[in-house]
Order: sequence, then structure tokens, then C-alpha cells
Amino acid sequence: MTSSNWGRWGEDDERGAANFATPEVLLAALSAVRSGVVVSLADEIRRDRVPVAPARTPATHLMSLDGGDFASGYNIHGSSHGVADDYLFMACQGTTHVDALGHLWYDGALYNGFPADKVRSYGATRLGIENLGHLVTRGVFLDVARYLGVPHLADTHAISADELRACARAAGVSIRAGDVVVVRTGWRAVFDTDPARYFATSPGIGLDAARWLAEQQIAAIASDNVAVEVQTAHDRFEGGSVAPECHKLLIRDCGTYLMELLNLEELAEHDAGEFLFVAAPLKIRGAVGSPLNPLAVL
Amino acid sequence: MTSSNWGRWGEDDERGAANFATPEVLLAALSAVRSGVVVSLADEIRRDRVPVAPARTPATHLMSLDGGDFASGYNIHGSSHGVADDYLFMACQGTTHVDALGHLWYDGALYNGFPADKVRSYGATRLGIENLGHLVTRGVFLDVARYLGVPHLADTHAISADELRACARAAGVSIRAGDVVVVRTGWRAVFDTDPARYFATSPGIGLDAARWLAEQQIAAIASDNVAVEVQTAHDRFEGGSVAPECHKLLIRDCGTYLMELLNLEELAEHDAGEFLFVAAPLKIRGAVGSPLNPLAVL
Amino acid sequence: MTSSNWGRWGEDDERGAANFATPEVLLAALSAVRSGVVVSLADEIRRDRVPVAPARTPATHLMSLDGGDFASGYNIHGSSHGVADDYLFMACQGTTHVDALGHLWYDGALYNGFPADKVRSYGATRLGIENLGHLVTRGVFLDVARYLGVPHLADTHAISADELRACARAAGVSIRAGDVVVVRTGWRAVFDTDPARYFATSPGIGLDAARWLAEQQIAAIASDNVAVEVQTAHDRFEGGSVAPECHKLLIRDCGTYLMELLNLEELAEHDAGEFLFVAAPLKIRGAVGSPLNPLAVL
Amino acid sequence: MTSSNWGRWGEDDERGAANFATPEVLLAALSAVRSGVVVSLADEIRRDRVPVAPARTPATHLMSLDGGDFASGYNIHGSSHGVADDYLFMACQGTTHVDALGHLWYDGALYNGFPADKVRSYGATRLGIENLGHLVTRGVFLDVARYLGVPHLADTHAISADELRACARAAGVSIRAGDVVVVRTGWRAVFDTDPARYFATSPGIGLDAARWLAEQQIAAIASDNVAVEVQTAHDRFEGGSVAPECHKLLIRDCGTYLMELLNLEELAEHDAGEFLFVAAPLKIRGAVGSPLNPLAVL
Repeated sequence: MTSSNWGRWGEDDERGAANFATPEVLLAALSAVRSGVVVSLADEIRRDRVPVAPARTPATHLMSLDGGDFASGYNIHGSSHGVADDYLFMACQGTTHVDALGHLWYDGALYNGFPADKVRSYGATRLGIENLGHLVTRGVFLDVARYLGVPHLADTHAISADELRACARAAGVSIRAGDVVVVRTGWRAVFDTDPARYFATSPGIGLDAARWLAEQQIAAIASDNVAVEVQTAHDRFEGGSVAPECHKLLIRDCGTYLMELLNLEELAEHDAGEFLFVAAPLKIRGAVGSPLNPLAVL
Repeated sequence: MTSSNWGRWGEDDERGAANFATPEVLLAALSAVRSGVVVSLADEIRRDRVPVAPARTPATHLMSLDGGDFASGYNIHGSSHGVADDYLFMACQGTTHVDALGHLWYDGALYNGFPADKVRSYGATRLGIENLGHLVTRGVFLDVARYLGVPHLADTHAISADELRACARAAGVSIRAGDVVVVRTGWRAVFDTDPARYFATSPGIGLDAARWLAEQQIAAIASDNVAVEVQTAHDRFEGGSVAPECHKLLIRDCGTYLMELLNLEELAEHDAGEFLFVAAPLKIRGAVGSPLNPLAVL
Repeated sequence: MTSSNWGRWGEDDERGAANFATPEVLLAALSAVRSGVVVSLADEIRRDRVPVAPARTPATHLMSLDGGDFASGYNIHGSSHGVADDYLFMACQGTTHVDALGHLWYDGALYNGFPADKVRSYGATRLGIENLGHLVTRGVFLDVARYLGVPHLADTHAISADELRACARAAGVSIRAGDVVVVRTGWRAVFDTDPARYFATSPGIGLDAARWLAEQQIAAIASDNVAVEVQTAHDRFEGGSVAPECHKLLIRDCGTYLMELLNLEELAEHDAGEFLFVAAPLKIRGAVGSPLNPLAVL
Repeated sequence: MTSSNWGRWGEDDERGAANFATPEVLLAALSAVRSGVVVSLADEIRRDRVPVAPARTPATHLMSLDGGDFASGYNIHGSSHGVADDYLFMACQGTTHVDALGHLWYDGALYNGFPADKVRSYGATRLGIENLGHLVTRGVFLDVARYLGVPHLADTHAISADELRACARAAGVSIRAGDVVVVRTGWRAVFDTDPARYFATSPGIGLDAARWLAEQQIAAIASDNVAVEVQTAHDRFEGGSVAPECHKLLIRDCGTYLMELLNLEELAEHDAGEFLFVAAPLKIRGAVGSPLNPLAVL
């Protein structure tokens, strides 16, 4: 039987599995904070040297006023002070990001049964990222690469539910409702040495792992690859012929959030099986994703 | 004597007063969380109906693929699933945001003495927002409008240090090192009824209040107006003839972060003098500001 | 009987009335060139001081490298030379522009019967601006404001076919197949003094004028207002309740090109009833409009 | 002796060698038009499949409203008509374009002696592309690849003045003041088969050819490569260690315009040594380049 959370929080619900992360869950998660150290799980937003899916335009940051202008003689009514300002153009899914529930659907229906055609050129009128708002809950770190004793998983390694469970046991944590499960494949390092290989395929969770995680009633899964789930062939997800089964189950059936393209290398240096996880996506009206700087408070 | 934090954390420091928010401060701040309720302090990012300084281009969100395309016959290799993607163009200071320390300077020098001309067209090579990374600490809410019994402060009201102290006493909180002080003027409501008035002037903290806050060694000040500090004349700050004295003292001398254009209306409905404050700015390489979704964990 | 050019150039035609501007028409148009003076009919592309429909984001031009950076110490491997580069974000219809035939439709059908749903988020797969390519032909200048002896036409003046004919007679020109008819209302000047009024309504051609022009088999109409045709109520065209009858007739039925937001003030200073008209739209794949610098070679 | 046009048209001149293209030159150029056929010399503007220098972000075209939205149920106050609108983000030099005279300088001085630091983050306050406005003059086609009997010139072939003269003789044309000289290397075809090779080096004019062309008082040179002049090493021009000597001579000393990344394949199919050349750059205030759809009227 396939999991589904349709109707669980009412027929108008647009927040999905983030509802599992209740205030009580948050209060309990505070005890996971031990050192007070904060680790960012995001890559920098920049034009190059960070993974951007080839089908998306790289982020472009531009200054509209800067120190060079003042060095050239510009001033503000003769004052001795100066200011700098800037602009950003980027794909909402172009770097470390969270998918909104409006990002993916099948059979014409989004999560909770909303029609897919409510996602329009002027934005998702249902299930836009503004419905998530924030996610502050316990994070559980499943460093599968370390657990398996490899720098990174193999190119098309589909992480199984058994592997996740064994990895959690080894880390001394158990998955609970409302958790964000952070899965490290180690794949991020491949980008630095071989960008083409990084996007050709990708290790990630397999379908039975996705099912098991959904059954645990987690709020979100975050990973250091392009699509959380395993990619067995080039552009499988974007334009490819194989349907993204984990996306279909998690986003559309269960309302579970997927966070992609994280950089988990710094987190991996800490011995932290659990922590307070914070996601504060930009409240972009009608967006189907938001760039994100996910934080782990250790 | 003017406060200054130059050299306090070494001559290479680019993080400024965020250094006051130590792991110990964070651990202590956890006790401020009581209900586990999370409140966003951000306005939505959208083209209209939110304050954007007239000198900046409004945020523009655009879909590159959406449900309408699938309704029109597009499909992914015959699969029944569909996906939507999107792009964002915006001013980094165009909505709720945090200024990087590279945003403002005087006499040619940025915070900690870095030359202003290090802020270039290809980004701030010193004091870009990536140096902040994150700010998780105690937030203290000073609802000055409520304290004074008005819907919002008057158009050019300069909040004094005495007012801040009295407001804090009334709220039963005291300012500590590493805090983020959230100051509510009520001015946000003016935008909804009279946008021109909203940007013509603005109530905000005055210089003695800024000095006092800096002396308390706070990490940041956040407010529901365009520039945190009082604006007594149209475009005083951007292109005007009066120097922004609080910006000069706070950003450049003290490395204190300013967060602007917050929406504090939901927070004001709660009776919360203190809370866990989380800022997770986008890690935009070399940016002098970042759009922000600041969170108050009550 | 309503004019229509569907099928006139084959069922696959995507170039519409531009086909009237044959090589023979072009050769004949050369004789309209007398002085060799070239006049641009475009407004500048800039963030302010030029008309941009309120529903569209103003053009934003940003430098990625400039002289200020070099003044600040940047150099290219020690060389004495420097370069500047820049980026542009703009609405394709945000300034002087030409509408592609994919810009407007009714009853689900575009020009020549193509389905409207071929215009998708990834661009117009039919009737995109790349199908126009260019338009070099005779231009005829109908300065209606001058003909009527007013600085500009009244706010909701619908120019009639009779007025166009009389204006042409007075200018000593007659409309021929393949022409671009340039209609001056004088309305551009209103923007400089009262931008709100400029967009509230607009004088422009009425439906009988549109019919007559279509019958003359012209290639395009260009005017110094937001929509070529008269606008009798605020946002009539964009989101309003009154259908744009001239657009429907001209673009969709006849494949006639509309060029909008021109600046005809310099042209009006010359005594030129006819000239060589050149439109070289950007070849933006799938765009439904292009910013344009239309030229009149006098 | 190095050519220079500084002061030739006054100390305030910002239009440079375009001044050679006088009305008289234009009138004479009309006789080059024989068939009335118009050929575009531009590549399409699109995200892929066209050459964009790796250091620049590819053009991104996005719809803000399209047929898919209407297919999904959107309508305009119940009307049967629909409209589509769109946006464009692009590098001004990201596709077929013309460099403004503010694009390049050396020894701190731009063309005509303007200080390089007048090119600022808010645009080139001197020598922006709006000063060119337009260029309508005679075009001369020097198909060097065909003349040498090769599909394209070799990877680092520096075209000499002798080769240009011989090629012109073979084509039966002579270069005159005010001309735009269109030089075909055939290199464009390399992009389709090997994009990396296309940008690694490039054939193009050498310095003696540049000198000779400048002495002929031409207005502009246009070519089907990334920088008009030969590129002998990867990123020589952008960030490389070898100064672009032809750019320095032509743009900065002589005010001669360079048009780059043209697609001359369709033109090459015609037997046209001369034609009427039209460049109508966007009038982007303060831009140092403009995307362009250059036209050859044969």
C-alpha cells in the first residue's frame, strides 16, 4: 500500500508533511542542541564552482553601486559615506534549495488533490513555497557514505531502507515523526573533480527507502545530490524517460519536502547524529522552489 | 566616545558583531523558547503589495515550466508526471533583508578598516554576506509602538535610548551581548494605506539609541522600516544629503548587522519579549545584502 | 466583412503581413530616401523616465565589470587595458517594442489558425518573434496630432479611418501594400508631465481605422502610445474588461504587426511623409515581443 | 604611426567612427541594393545552441503569461481573447552584439580621451551605446574563408591586410570611408561541432589588418567570431595575459565599432560583395554593448 497524506490535515492543506513538525516536536528537538555550534548546509550562490543543473541558468549576482564608483569620484551630495547595492538573477532550484509541493505532480493532480494546472506562469496559485514558510525541527544525519566506508557512494547506488536503518542504528539515532532526515552520499565531492560525471547520474535514495521514510512521517529529506533520489541515467529527471518515483511518492502523495544540492561536507566533520534543523526559505509568492541556507544547530 | 569593534576579533575579521553571538549565547537563548511556535518576520517576495524602495527594481518571479504547459499538451517522454521550475530576479535589498557589512562605509574605510574599493562590480571581495553565514541567537522584541500606545510611531519619530530602555523594562527583558534587538515602529501598516508616505520619511532609532545598543554588544538590529534608523526627509539615505549616522556607527564602526523591511505584525500578536532568533541569509558570494526570512521561535 | 490573411501565404506561414513587404516593395521604398538622415523612433531603455506599463517590471541594466573596478586596483594580468561588460533584465514589451504574432489571440486560435496553447512557458513554439526576423520597407508618417493642430490627441480620442485618410492626403502620401504606417498621437509628451494620466487611458486608432489599414495590406502599424489602439479605460488591455478589438483584428486575423511605445518627437521635427523604415527585432527564440530601435531613413 | 580619431569630430564627440557614415555615404550606399532581399546576420538569442562566451551567463527568456495559462482556465474578465508576455535576462555581449566605445580602454583613457572611470556601475556616463544610436551605411563582405578555399580559417589564423585587400579585389569591391566591413572566417561552424574549440582560440583579423582598415576610415568591422581579432590562446581577451591590440587600436584610438558573434552563413550563400548594412542597437542608457540583429539589404 502506498502512503498518502491527502486529507490528513484537511482538504485545504497546502503545507503537507511540514505539519508533522509540530511545536511539540520542535520543543523536543531543542534537546538535540549540545554545543551551540551552527553549521550551514548550503553551497555558495555564485556563477561557477558550485553545482547547477545544466538545464538551468547559473546564478548571476551584479552590483548596481559599489566602492569602485566612489573610487572613481562618485559621492552622495558631498558626504564622506558610501553605499553599495546589488541584484540577483537565479533559478529557484539553481543551488541548494527546497522544492515547494507545487514542483511536481502526476496524473494531473498535485499533493492533496489540487489540479496541476493551478501552477501557472504567474506562479503556483496552490502549493507555492510561501505555504511552507519555515521548518524548524529535529534533523537526523545519516552519513551513508561514512557508514559504508567510502568517500562517496557509487554512481548509481540506490540507498535502501535497510541501509538507512542500519546507518541510523550505527549513529545511535532513530527516525521520528516531524524529523528532517539529512542523507549524505558524498557525491558533492565528485562535482569538484568531474562536473560532467556529477550530473550524468547520481547515487541517492531508492524507492523502498522513500517509502520507509514516508511511513516514519518525516517532514523532509535533504541530500547532497541533485534530486535526493538515485539518478540512474543522464537527465532522468529533467527531460528523461524514467519517471522520478521517489519524487512522485514523497512530494505528491505524501507532501514530504525535498531539499537538494546541499553541501554536507562541513557537517560530516562533526559527530552529530541529531541537531536542530532550520530551513527559512524565501517567501517568494507562488514559487515552486526557493534557494535555501539550511542550518544545523549542533 | 564612539564605540568601535575594529580589531576586536582580529584584523582579518569579516563577521563583526555576529561574533558576540557565541555558542554559549545560543545555548542560553534556547531557554527563551516556550511554545515551539515559529513566526516568520518577512514580507512575501512579490512584484507588488510589499514595500520596495523606489530606487530599486521590484522582485520579478517567472516560471520556466508550469502546469499550464502540461495542460497544453507538453509531456516528459510520455510520462504521466509533470514538473514546474522557476526563476527570480530581485534587488538583494529589495524586500526583508540583512545588510552585509560591505554595504556601507565612510572615509574610504569599511568595518575593520578594509578599503571601500574592495567592494567591486564582481562583488564585495571583503565583508560580503557569505561572511555572516547565519545568526542564531536570542531575539528581544521591543514593540515601541505598543509601548507608546499608538498604531505606529509618527513620521519622523527618532526612538531614543531612554525609550528603548523603558520599552524593554515594560516587556520584562534586558538586552544582553549577542542579542538581536527587534524594534517595532508599526510603520509597516502605513505602506498598505499610503505607499508614498511610507517612503517619504520613516520613524526609527535615533543616534543615541544606536550608540546604546552598540554598547550592549548586540549582534544585530531588525526593524519594520526601510533603514532601521529614522528618516527625516525623503530619500535621506539613498541619494539624500543627510548622512545615515546610525548606519555609519553600527555597520562600519561596530560591525553590527541591520535587518530592514521586516513585517512584525504577526509577531506583535504574540506576547513574546524574547525568543530564539534565526537568520539564514542566502550565501551569495560577494553580495552586500541578502533577502531574508527571519524566524522567531517562541 | 472582416479582413483575414489566414492561409494567404500558406497554412504554415508564421510571418503574416510582413509578407506584404516584398523585395519589390523594398526596392520601391528606396526612392523615399532623400537626405540620408537617420532618425531613431525608440525611447531609451532605462529604469526610469521612460514609459513602462505599470504591470511590467522596469528594465534594469547592470555592469558586471567597469571602470570603477580598474580605478580601485583591478587589472587584467598587469596589462594597461581595461574592459567593461554588462547585463540587461527587461520585459520584452517594456519599452519601444514590436509584438510578435504570438502575443495575442482569441477563441483559442492565433494568426493563421495555430492553437494558442502553442505559446508556452518555454516560449512561443509558433509565431515567435524570430519569424519576423526583420522588416525593411516604406514607412508612412501620419502625424495626426499635427494634422489636427493639437500638441496631442485627447485622452480617449479614437482615430478614425477618415482622419487617417485626410491626414495622409494632407501629407501628400498614399498608403500602399507593405507599408509601415507610423501614427503620431503626441501622447508621449503626456508621460513626461503626468505618468499616471499617460497610462490611465490613451488616444489611438479606432476599429474602423484598423479595418481600413488592414485592407490596405500594410505590414505594420507603429505608434507613440502603449497599445496602438485607443484605450478608453484604465487597464482596458491588460486585465481590463474590454477586449482589444484592434489587436484582435490586426494581430490575430490579419497578421499585422503592432509596434508600441515609440518616441516620434524627433521624427515630427522633420517634414517627412515617407521614408525607409527599418525594424531589426532581436531574434529571441520563442519571444512574443522584442524591444526595438525602429529607424526612419529620411 | 598609429591612427587615431581623437578630436576629429570635436572633443565632446562620443560617436567615433560612425561619423564617417555620413548621410552622403548612406545615399551612395543605396545603390548597393539590387534584389531587395534582406538577410539577418544574427544568431538567435536562446539559452543554448548559440555561442556565448563561457564567462558570461547565457540569455534566459521567460514568459510571464502564456497560452498554457489560458488552457488551464485563466481568462481576462471572461473575454475570449488571450495575451502572452515575456522577459529577457542576458549579457549585452552575450550573443551577436556591437561593443560600445565605452567597452574598452587603456592607460586610463577611453576613446577621445574620456577617463575610463566614467564607466561606472550605474552605466557608462560617457560613450554608452546610446551614442551610436544606429548605423546605416554600405556593407562590404569579405568572405576570407571562401577566398582561401577553406570551410573556415585555421584556429589561430591572423588575417593580414594583404589578405583583406586580395579578398576585396576578388570580390570586386573596394573599401571606402564609412563602410562596415563584414569579415567571414567560417569559424561559426566550429561551434556547432566543437564548442570548446570554438572558444579556445579563434581566427580573426591581425593588427596590420586592423591598421589598414582604420586608415580606410571605416565605421565598423563585423565578424563571425567572439572578438573580431584573432585569439591565439584561451581567454586571451577576457582575463588572459595578452592585450587585445586590435581592440585597443580600433575602439579606443579610432572609435571604430566592433560587431561580434555574427552568423554569416546565410549571407555567404548570396553573391553579394556590397549591400546596405543596418545596425539598430537597443538604446540602453549607459550600456557598453547591445545585442544586435544586423541586417544586410542585398
